Amino acid sequence: MSAIIKALQEITGNDRVLTSPEDLITLGYDGTPVLENAPLAGVIPADAEQVSRIMHLANDSGTPVVPRGSGTGLSGGSVPVPGSIVMLFPRWNRIIEIDEANLTAKVQAGVITADLHAAVEQRGLFYPPDPGSMKICTIGGNVAENSGGLRGLKYGVTANYTMGLQVVLPTGEIIETGNKCVKDVAGLRLTDLFTGSEGILGIFTEVLVRLIPRPAASKTMLATFDRIEDAAESVSEIIAKKIIPCTLEFLDSTTIECVEAYARIGLPSGLAALLLIEVDGHPAVVAEEAEQIVAICKQHRALEVTLAADAAEAERLKTARRAALSALARLKPTTILEDATVPRSEVATMVTRIREIARKYDLTFGNFGHAGDGNLHPTCLTDERDAEEMHRVELAFEEIFRAALDLGGTITGEHGIGLAKKQFLRTSTPDAKMELLQKIKASFDPNNILNPGKIIDSHPRCETLHT
Amino acid sequence: MSAIIKALQEITGNDRVLTSPEDLITLGYDGTPVLENAPLAGVIPADAEQVSRIMHLANDSGTPVVPRGSGTGLSGGSVPVPGSIVMLFPRWNRIIEIDEANLTAKVQAGVITADLHAAVEQRGLFYPPDPGSMKICTIGGNVAENSGGLRGLKYGVTANYTMGLQVVLPTGEIIETGNKCVKDVAGLRLTDLFTGSEGILGIFTEVLVRLIPRPAASKTMLATFDRIEDAAESVSEIIAKKIIPCTLEFLDSTTIECVEAYARIGLPSGLAALLLIEVDGHPAVVAEEAEQIVAICKQHRALEVTLAADAAEAERLKTARRAALSALARLKPTTILEDATVPRSEVATMVTRIREIARKYDLTFGNFGHAGDGNLHPTCLTDERDAEEMHRVELAFEEIFRAALDLGGTITGEHGIGLAKKQFLRTSTPDAKMELLQKIKASFDPNNILNPGKIIDSHPRCETLHT
Repeated sequence: MSAIIKALQEITGNDRVLTSPEDLITLGYDGTPVLENAPLAGVIPADAEQVSRIMHLANDSGTPVVPRGSGTGLSGGSVPVPGSIVMLFPRWNRIIEIDEANLTAKVQAGVITADLHAAVEQRGLFYPPDPGSMKICTIGGNVAENSGGLRGLKYGVTANYTMGLQVVLPTGEIIETGNKCVKDVAGLRLTDLFTGSEGILGIFTEVLVRLIPRPAASKTMLATFDRIEDAAESVSEIIAKKIIPCTLEFLDSTTIECVEAYARIGLPSGLAALLLIEVDGHPAVVAEEAEQIVAICKQHRALEVTLAADAAEAERLKTARRAALSALARLKPTTILEDATVPRSEVATMVTRIREIARKYDLTFGNFGHAGDGNLHPTCLTDERDAEEMHRVELAFEEIFRAALDLGGTITGEHGIGLAKKQFLRTSTPDAKMELLQKIKASFDPNNILNPGKIIDSHPRCETLHT
Repeated sequence: MSAIIKALQEITGNDRVLTSPEDLITLGYDGTPVLENAPLAGVIPADAEQVSRIMHLANDSGTPVVPRGSGTGLSGGSVPVPGSIVMLFPRWNRIIEIDEANLTAKVQAGVITADLHAAVEQRGLFYPPDPGSMKICTIGGNVAENSGGLRGLKYGVTANYTMGLQVVLPTGEIIETGNKCVKDVAGLRLTDLFTGSEGILGIFTEVLVRLIPRPAASKTMLATFDRIEDAAESVSEIIAKKIIPCTLEFLDSTTIECVEAYARIGLPSGLAALLLIEVDGHPAVVAEEAEQIVAICKQHRALEVTLAADAAEAERLKTARRAALSALARLKPTTILEDATVPRSEVATMVTRIREIARKYDLTFGNFGHAGDGNLHPTCLTDERDAEEMHRVELAFEEIFRAALDLGGTITGEHGIGLAKKQFLRTSTPDAKMELLQKIKASFDPNNILNPGKIIDSHPRCETLHT
């Protein structure tokens, strides 16, 4: 047995160190296709103190540590580099406090996002971030990835709700950032820097989140179009009318067909686009805004606009969007879900560009996503065993990312850089900025022990992880 | 003439380098009492390119540079260290773009905050941050200080609206951060790290801000109390009823008396507390919430609750709060305005603690501030020429800051650390965290050229700036 594994067992007890081949295989990948690599071991620390001791051990021995929530990440952020220890938080699921007076909740990092939703909603409160994986992903992982979700347009992303953290630094010290104050300008904004740092700056053990009052009412609409431009113009007009829906989702024709074949919700064939729209808030405002939205969609030549009469019908309408990824994934063995993002005003242009690129490289793409905030999910349906096609897939995504940047957008709206987009970040970031990012990383992690090879690190160990 | 001044003149032209004693005296202080120190020179760069060249010159010659907006800061952040160049942005007042489709505005860093308010409100949009100095302060300064304001409770602070920056790094490189995308997780969150960095990490030349639709209606209320606890309980009950006013301000008895003597708005004598409350949003919601708030205040023994009938009366009610600082400042030669901040639930306790501390040290304090977000402004009315009293003032503030921290709060809610609170940050921050902050600063500014001596830097040049 290696000395590292023995030392880990001394810190956590034997049953909290995973070394069986089955365990190591499952820890070798996350939600990202194509990337895979088994670690040296997995470890389940019992508390922040043990996390700290493990980090000291890692630094002393030069062993990389990769923190992992539920492993649902879509950019390879928790795919282990060779010889690394994967740190897991499966029993860190305690909601420590819900503070109704200060509108905050303090949770252990391993709390499942949907469990936090349920707990605070019982008290009439609301935690808005709702990533697609919310039923299984963890708050700690959400903070690491600065996860978005369907409600981002109106409510923002995880960073907008992260008020404080307990963090174990790569060098082993435990620090606290933030507090329950809405305003705090004492020192640099460490909480915000840690949020979205994809596990390279620190390991989150506790998270203090901001809550808001639960919206009293909501209304859900589904509008269908036979021209994509009509859908895009409807979106623009809704915002121009100063209505900010909580959800404003888009599905393209390929996605609609797959969803209908999969979920049979009664969508007609031959649609070019579908919008799923939800407004929430005060009942009077919701009613008024829903009425305006229906009128706007009709003015912009919607074929049909369905306003859900009740919660059950709203759920049925939402199925169209929720089933999108699963429905697309049935078509081909490999599903590559991306999140090229553009300013809202460029959504129609970007959708057209993606279709052109798919045609150029003779690939099957479904496209759906958050039209309201410009966060699209062009999804390539392919087969990773087909090397020639995979090469075309790579070229197509390169063009898609370049198109997003050309339109003033970003290569990733909510999935992160991780391993998957490292080379795109590198080629699209000026040297001065890249060096600054690397220096920040080094100031937290001088030995490059915590999640090396990710985002900005051209660690040689990580260049060969593609299967 | 020194070589530095000559080199500056070569970069910007002679008329943009200030060296007269009158200029240097006015550049020697900001809005913070007691701190003062004349710089070597002032310089007004014409564009980011010149800022870059000045930073290269500063690095090559070891000359500190202190960026300055309108100099309204309240923690000495723009007070120059000896031998430094103060960089000014008086002509950087262009609103470059208001993008109604993407709800953003791009401005030069020297744009006055109130000018941005006016420009976007004309288009039915809204930029919420409203620091007390909004009629003269700049957006660049607001970003540097992460400025708050009266609307923080509902709308947050400057950081919540800063989407992107053009920044000149301390080493002279010009970088861009952020974009118009609501969601962007490509790389570390540099925009957020720069926001609130008090001019030590970079010089902001352009700012991209997020806008929201302008609230359609608002209602303003003023409630008076003869027990401070009744006011505090009203605040708690409003939040417990899931109402988030945009403004929820508190004035204590001393402040009320001074305001009445100064502004003659007809407040009765002998009041213990006053709440100024404003709700905004959809007219139906505003009407309903205002009615609930009036009822809550009455239930909690408010002496009188005035609901403004129209905009003119709302303005009159707001005078009470807006005049607070000016009214207090008339009492004594020196006014020290602080911003110890606690979680909302601790406001009543903190107000009581501040009164006890004022009594203990035999000092005159007015207290007012943002009750809704726990951001109080205990204001000491004193005379800086009275060394013995000033010593007691220092001891009193030390106790106030300790009390805020004991209650889970912070030593500064919106004014920043700068020079004024450096020692409190140092004594209240664990070594591991302080070292991390210092390492981050060093990774941006290896030669410690940009605004040295502030926040986390125990630069010997800055220990003697107290007059």
